[in-house]
Amino acid sequence: MLRYSVSMSADGFVAGPDQSEQHPLGIRGELLHAWMRELAIWREQAGLAGGVVNASTAVIERGDDNIGAIIMGRNMFGGQPGPWREPMWNGWWGENPPFHLPVVVLTHYARSPLACEGGTSFEFVTGGIGAALDRAGDAASGKDVVISGGAGVAKQYLAAGLLDELLIHLVPEFLGDGTRLFDDPALTAVKLEQTRAVEAPGVTHLYYRIARAG
Amino acid sequence: MLRYSVSMSADGFVAGPDQSEQHPLGIRGELLHAWMRELAIWREQAGLAGGVVNASTAVIERGDDNIGAIIMGRNMFGGQPGPWREPMWNGWWGENPPFHLPVVVLTHYARSPLACEGGTSFEFVTGGIGAALDRAGDAASGKDVVISGGAGVAKQYLAAGLLDELLIHLVPEFLGDGTRLFDDPALTAVKLEQTRAVEAPGVTHLYYRIARAG
Repeated sequence: MLRYSVSMSADGFVAGPDQSEQHPLGIRGELLHAWMRELAIWREQAGLAGGVVNASTAVIERGDDNIGAIIMGRNMFGGQPGPWREPMWNGWWGENPPFHLPVVVLTHYARSPLACEGGTSFEFVTGGIGAALDRAGDAASGKDVVISGGAGVAKQYLAAGLLDELLIHLVPEFLGDGTRLFDDPALTAVKLEQTRAVEAPGVTHLYYRIARAG
Repeated sequence: MLRYSVSMSADGFVAGPDQSEQHPLGIRGELLHAWMRELAIWREQAGLAGGVVNASTAVIERGDDNIGAIIMGRNMFGGQPGPWREPMWNGWWGENPPFHLPVVVLTHYARSPLACEGGTSFEFVTGGIGAALDRAGDAASGKDVVISGGAGVAKQYLAAGLLDELLIHLVPEFLGDGTRLFDDPALTAVKLEQTRAVEAPGVTHLYYRIARAG
């Protein structure tokens, strides 16, 4: 099963405008994750003290469960656009990346796999989203594959009818501009089923199942 | 208090493209109200038998409660665009309109009030959204004022910081194109507070309180 979860503003943006190193989620984009930064479960993973337990806690726990592999875009992995150059960029993630799982990176430029400490490996797939999903599915050994970051990557899988479960964390904020998750007229071919909605402080978690095309 | 409620697709549209007499909510727009047409409370008001009672029923009941006056746009009232012409169009609504309340119609063209059977009256205000709200507030005698139809009218009140409560019926459908409720970059000046979320079959009801500007 291929899953994607993302925080979205009331006006439909998953990132604000003008993304930069200073504003990785764009202007006002940090508002998308305010609900998460309050949580003890998130703060513990980030090495911070304190935080609360509320209805979002179980949503996070469930989201972290049963993951066998991760797909991410080239920008999420890091490095300049275009062909890989020496010295080879090994991502934002340091010697011991926080994934501890096989990661498939979608890129236009071939590169040898990277094995890191702590169980994280990066494999670079140039054959497109179908090939990346096949590789991630093999690596996941029967568990789920999640798309981690890169709304552009998630949009491709959604439009292709390859996404099985979508979890929107809808936050009561307006970003006004930026990147929309849903702006493709071809989405009318995608059949959503609302499976669950969870009210929590400062966010509503919306679970959808998606009928696979074909 | 000024309230507005509307059904919205997952991709943020409150009407599909190409609105016409045959498709008053545009192409695919009828999908926005599928959740409502199943309800016994809606079917009874429409003179139809059958229907179900579920978590949406209380949302509809609560929405119908404590309304003292209605604001609508000229298109919702009916008639051709431009100056009023003889024979005077009296709306879609027949001799006994279904409102049974004072209705304030926002228009650019002055016209005398209309008193109808069943307690519905139409007053035509040319002074803009603030003047219309003042008139509706007086007519409401301390009860709430609701905006009934016309996303364009609701968008103006929202952007002006005059809306107090917003209820989004979020439906698991993609319209792909049409009219968005939230497409104004100036919305970043509007402060939303999520007050409640209600999961129901085929829809999630999202209640927001809005801080008034100034």
